[in-house]
Amino acid sequence: MKSTETLIHARWVIPVAPRGTVLENHSLAIDEGRITAILPDNEARQTFRAQRTVELAHHALIPGLVNAHTHAAMNLLRGVADDLPLMDWLQNHIWPAEQKWVNEQFVHDGTQLAIAEMLRSGTTCFNDMYFYPEATARVAAGAGMRVCAGMILIDFPTGYADNPDEYLAKGLALHDEYRHHPLVHFSFAPHAPYTVSDQPLSRIQVLAAELDLPIHMHVHETAGEITDSLRGCGQRPLQRLQQLGLVSPSLVAVHMTQADDQDRRQLADGGASVVHCPESNLKLASGFCEVQKLLDAGINVALGTDGAASNNDLDMLGEMRNAALLGKAVHGDASALPAADVLQMATLNGARALGLADAIGSLQPGKWADITAVDMGCLETQPLYDPVSQLVYAAGREQVSDVWVAGQHLLRKRELTQMDLPEIAQRTVDWQQRIAASDRHQ
Amino acid sequence: MKSTETLIHARWVIPVAPRGTVLENHSLAIDEGRITAILPDNEARQTFRAQRTVELAHHALIPGLVNAHTHAAMNLLRGVADDLPLMDWLQNHIWPAEQKWVNEQFVHDGTQLAIAEMLRSGTTCFNDMYFYPEATARVAAGAGMRVCAGMILIDFPTGYADNPDEYLAKGLALHDEYRHHPLVHFSFAPHAPYTVSDQPLSRIQVLAAELDLPIHMHVHETAGEITDSLRGCGQRPLQRLQQLGLVSPSLVAVHMTQADDQDRRQLADGGASVVHCPESNLKLASGFCEVQKLLDAGINVALGTDGAASNNDLDMLGEMRNAALLGKAVHGDASALPAADVLQMATLNGARALGLADAIGSLQPGKWADITAVDMGCLETQPLYDPVSQLVYAAGREQVSDVWVAGQHLLRKRELTQMDLPEIAQRTVDWQQRIAASDRHQ
Repeated sequence: MKSTETLIHARWVIPVAPRGTVLENHSLAIDEGRITAILPDNEARQTFRAQRTVELAHHALIPGLVNAHTHAAMNLLRGVADDLPLMDWLQNHIWPAEQKWVNEQFVHDGTQLAIAEMLRSGTTCFNDMYFYPEATARVAAGAGMRVCAGMILIDFPTGYADNPDEYLAKGLALHDEYRHHPLVHFSFAPHAPYTVSDQPLSRIQVLAAELDLPIHMHVHETAGEITDSLRGCGQRPLQRLQQLGLVSPSLVAVHMTQADDQDRRQLADGGASVVHCPESNLKLASGFCEVQKLLDAGINVALGTDGAASNNDLDMLGEMRNAALLGKAVHGDASALPAADVLQMATLNGARALGLADAIGSLQPGKWADITAVDMGCLETQPLYDPVSQLVYAAGREQVSDVWVAGQHLLRKRELTQMDLPEIAQRTVDWQQRIAASDRHQ
Repeated sequence: MKSTETLIHARWVIPVAPRGTVLENHSLAIDEGRITAILPDNEARQTFRAQRTVELAHHALIPGLVNAHTHAAMNLLRGVADDLPLMDWLQNHIWPAEQKWVNEQFVHDGTQLAIAEMLRSGTTCFNDMYFYPEATARVAAGAGMRVCAGMILIDFPTGYADNPDEYLAKGLALHDEYRHHPLVHFSFAPHAPYTVSDQPLSRIQVLAAELDLPIHMHVHETAGEITDSLRGCGQRPLQRLQQLGLVSPSLVAVHMTQADDQDRRQLADGGASVVHCPESNLKLASGFCEVQKLLDAGINVALGTDGAASNNDLDMLGEMRNAALLGKAVHGDASALPAADVLQMATLNGARALGLADAIGSLQPGKWADITAVDMGCLETQPLYDPVSQLVYAAGREQVSDVWVAGQHLLRKRELTQMDLPEIAQRTVDWQQRIAASDRHQ
């Protein structure tokens, strides 16, 4: 008998790679935070003596979900001003609230709330873009959560930094601080083509190549963005990024509700990734991303929720479901965006976008044990003809029973093991009361 | 002190009528199955002595959700063949499975599963269309669930009936049997314009007027339906229904992904209702229903899930969320389909479509106590700036804590009080094994 730290026996193991594989009655062994073996249940019981054994008789094990676009701290603004026209929402509610309230403590508390929600819904890694990424990184590391923290950059001054140089300097110092941390990864996060000028974008392009880091950016979120750019500089935003050398495997282009054939060719030829955020695109009436066409062009498409102010949750199971449903209607074909493709978008494709595909995104020996278990025994996922289909189309966030990140059992039978929920709840209420009082006066 | 059977104290009461009202710290009294009073919590405690008191300190009370379009028994086919082109799905999977398996026992068992799921997600009334409605009615009555059972009619023979006359005769006999039942209501349910010919539609029109019953029908589900009709008889299907006298307050036209100005005028002038089924329309790539335009035309729009084979759940909270999200994108305006409108679609508008607006659909003294409580204290609905917004955009089915139908407490702290879950689960597994074995041979 070999010894191992943790042995998980599950009804189904859905490793994502190879695509479409569903292993029945299999077990997964974890040692030193990594997956060491995946093998039939009966073999596993004969092979391993485990310090901890977890029996998941009605569950599917999947790679931990990778939320490829978040503004985690904005959880504190969940539902603060819904159902408003986009510019009213931004100019009279979200931006004033951010200007007034966002500081390091806000980001700390909001990110804690967000991580608790993400773990409870099966997410093990989030790709974040927000002010004070030092707070985001600290909270994630403390909670045992995997994060790709964005070194944010925007042309105009905020409470966080005064100018592009200061944004970059702060981001790079933070990156240095966490250089060898197993859970905290980094991206450059220039906000959007229309808020970052050429000079800092060129610097980011050089630095991203040197440091081998992704560039996380909102690109082509709305039709208006294209029109404005054509009017302003005679180019589509992606064309400008292309000329600046940014359309490369580093680029993580978020939203892309507007993509013509040339855009798709540029993204595909450059090896860039797209992050699809269906619920945010719907809620803000940003447009419809033609995901199947992106996939058909060979582009790596990941999945994200965006911030809770435009969603209003961080539930990647729900996001997968809506990506699959919407993808069919947008493509005009009920066979578009099948469940297995969407599950891959929410796991391995997210990992690829972040340059982490060797480390996470699928259940394979050698990768980190970032794992989510979903209880498929509930009424809502019965009868069960196909576990992948039920996972995407019928399972709810409440069916996520257990979550591990780098082998740490962070959610156990729906209980968060490392987070102080009553304290998070109290801080959330405190912020809510202050923010609500001030939003009413807008 | 007045005595009352049940007194519910809730953090919020959202009665739906008047629109937009949110009552804080209010109580609701129930006697003989009906709401008798809604008043401030402190007054209620001084006014009433209750046999049963329910304290819901973090909850919103809303009218029980009305699922205005279901094929409940199809829960047994949930996920049997997803991600296929529409015609392959229907012709090679759904129709053969129905032909082979659907009988009274199938409908009984499938409807039990569906009702359990609906109660667990806050639905108190469903408008059903399927074969063997006698089984649907019997199961609903037994479970204490409110149903509008469809007297189904289709031109071609099935195991249930041989011809239009037999369908109608069976339906009417059933209607007579339940004539005075407080929970079992009826509609005529001619399947669709393209499957029911003029003669039976004319008979239904006369009978519906005589008996004052709704006519529940799929109408304009896909663009193909319009094209085929124009080719076949030179008319849009709605135009044909109009000529047959069916476009009246009785008509409950389901789907309507295709509606031009003239269709909207006809529906509005006739006083007909539309049932929007966003998730089914997406999943089958049927098209996008322009809901805001229907509402702006003054048409009563209700909400439905459709059957679990094309959804794949019966979760009306999720359906509300997607109706609100999708409605904005389709209308190109983030302020379209605000949360309060969508909540009304899922409650009062459903009741109106079924001719039950005097009995259910809002929390008002005199109406049946069909009530749903949603726990807003979870992490996922925090912070809470606006209860209606959080209910529609952030709450999940798992937050439904309690459900009453006609004053019967059918879901108590998430436990079904009247249903035998292990038995339902076992029957579901039995069907799944038989159906899966036969579907593999298609």
